[in-house]
Amino acid sequence: MISLLMEKIKKTAPIVVGLDPQLSFIPKGILEKAFKEYGETPEAAAAAFFEFNKGIVDAVCDLVPAVKPQIAMYEALGLPGMKAFYDTVDYCRKKGLIIIGDVKRGDIGSTSAAYAEGHLGHITLGDKVFRGFDEDFATVNPYLGSDGIKPFIDVCNRDDKGIFVLVKTSNPSSGEFQDRTCDGRPLYELVGDKVREWGELSMDGDYSNVGAVVGATYPEMGKVLRKLMPKTCILVPGYGAQGGKGSDLVHFFNEDGLGAIINSSRGIIAAYKNEAYKEFGGEAYADAARKAVLDMKADIESALS
Amino acid sequence: MISLLMEKIKKTAPIVVGLDPQLSFIPKGILEKAFKEYGETPEAAAAAFFEFNKGIVDAVCDLVPAVKPQIAMYEALGLPGMKAFYDTVDYCRKKGLIIIGDVKRGDIGSTSAAYAEGHLGHITLGDKVFRGFDEDFATVNPYLGSDGIKPFIDVCNRDDKGIFVLVKTSNPSSGEFQDRTCDGRPLYELVGDKVREWGELSMDGDYSNVGAVVGATYPEMGKVLRKLMPKTCILVPGYGAQGGKGSDLVHFFNEDGLGAIINSSRGIIAAYKNEAYKEFGGEAYADAARKAVLDMKADIESALS
Repeated sequence: MISLLMEKIKKTAPIVVGLDPQLSFIPKGILEKAFKEYGETPEAAAAAFFEFNKGIVDAVCDLVPAVKPQIAMYEALGLPGMKAFYDTVDYCRKKGLIIIGDVKRGDIGSTSAAYAEGHLGHITLGDKVFRGFDEDFATVNPYLGSDGIKPFIDVCNRDDKGIFVLVKTSNPSSGEFQDRTCDGRPLYELVGDKVREWGELSMDGDYSNVGAVVGATYPEMGKVLRKLMPKTCILVPGYGAQGGKGSDLVHFFNEDGLGAIINSSRGIIAAYKNEAYKEFGGEAYADAARKAVLDMKADIESALS
Repeated sequence: MISLLMEKIKKTAPIVVGLDPQLSFIPKGILEKAFKEYGETPEAAAAAFFEFNKGIVDAVCDLVPAVKPQIAMYEALGLPGMKAFYDTVDYCRKKGLIIIGDVKRGDIGSTSAAYAEGHLGHITLGDKVFRGFDEDFATVNPYLGSDGIKPFIDVCNRDDKGIFVLVKTSNPSSGEFQDRTCDGRPLYELVGDKVREWGELSMDGDYSNVGAVVGATYPEMGKVLRKLMPKTCILVPGYGAQGGKGSDLVHFFNEDGLGAIINSSRGIIAAYKNEAYKEFGGEAYADAARKAVLDMKADIESALS
């Protein structure tokens, strides 16, 4: 799966759009229409999320290789939200996009296998195959060690999928544990070592189906991790709303100009609420998102050149 | 919420039954009935899970204070599975059980808040309140630090709920990161320090709504962590099928005889498949589960006396 992502990045941009809807992002018109149809209910909120996402996806699908729906935003709405997540993944697939499910799952043994089957794999009943949420990649938490990761790798190898393992996250408190010095090195480097090792179990072209998450907000650590994991694709959150800039991204890439994909969520999907794209207004929220992607692409290209 | 759990433990036993159904656990009769009604589909598998769970819950609800559905098993079935998870939580609540959602979620800021609202809290639309999955406790992964935990604590304080933070997990590879020596102490102790600190933000009687997960398979570490986090309720997985014995559990409890709750999943729900309870057979799977709970209770009581 990672080779397909790299191919698509070459044709478009190393950008993934985070589909993390919140009620406050949804333009009035979409929300009112949903409330009219379903009442003021979670069903309405979920329908509004899906409608909102469709607008974004239609506007950006020729510019980017992938989207990253953040499942928490959908889980907040309970079952109707899960349906909207499913519908969103399905819609993005039909639009030819690669889907990175930002699910941050992680457990052990048969439990991790169940997550892997539900998000990336399939179950077989009788002579039929059924796919649960059917993303292409999932983000995975490494705290439980190899027992949590290997069941995902098995599914990746069987169904041609991939994962991104949290290594150094973009948030301010990520250092509380991730930066602790363990046997002379920061914990995130030890996790990086393991990601490289796990990665060897699922090579696909020049890169591994086992990727890593490293926040744009920590460019110096990104530089070290880039060297530590040369065949690992790095998913980089934290650009834009969280403070990461184009110039911070340079060292996340390999010399082939590949090896990293930069995420922006609210900076794109809620662009119309930012001062810079205010003139678009709520009705043209999708056009604002497209403009924000184009600006982000230019920012990254200028930093890399 | 933790004070309610302690009250219930005093009246019953420090045992939580893991509702982690797998297709191979479901007796033929239940599965065939579901396939007849829904065809060989995920809907049928999900209906069979729920039917199976109801039998277990009816058989054990007077013996234990709580159940712990493992959401991964349901996610494996996609949307119909999520519905079975929801229905299971709802059924357990009506039976007066406390529900520990074993969801191992963890993200940052507004994303962690979204998980917390979906699993423990609520959303407000118009003048109405809607609850997503409405468990009483959720398990949470600490790898992202305080940014990931505090949004859960806010919801715990507002809606009287609780969390169990992964500290030292029961699996063989848990030591890969959790046991690394960081600044002279194992990482799981540093996480334990934080759990104690976070716990002070949500005290409820003698214990905190912020609990910890420590595996029965590491009794010596449990002893250290018990002392490090005196006001923390420890959720202890790994008893039974994973190898933990009653005698391993002693040091997880405080001197008040409280402060720990021991989980068993397949050792109870699939007891009829074990040599010891074979005579029950598939049709009496729920009776086998009841007997397994009674035996577990006796094992723990004898170890503690």
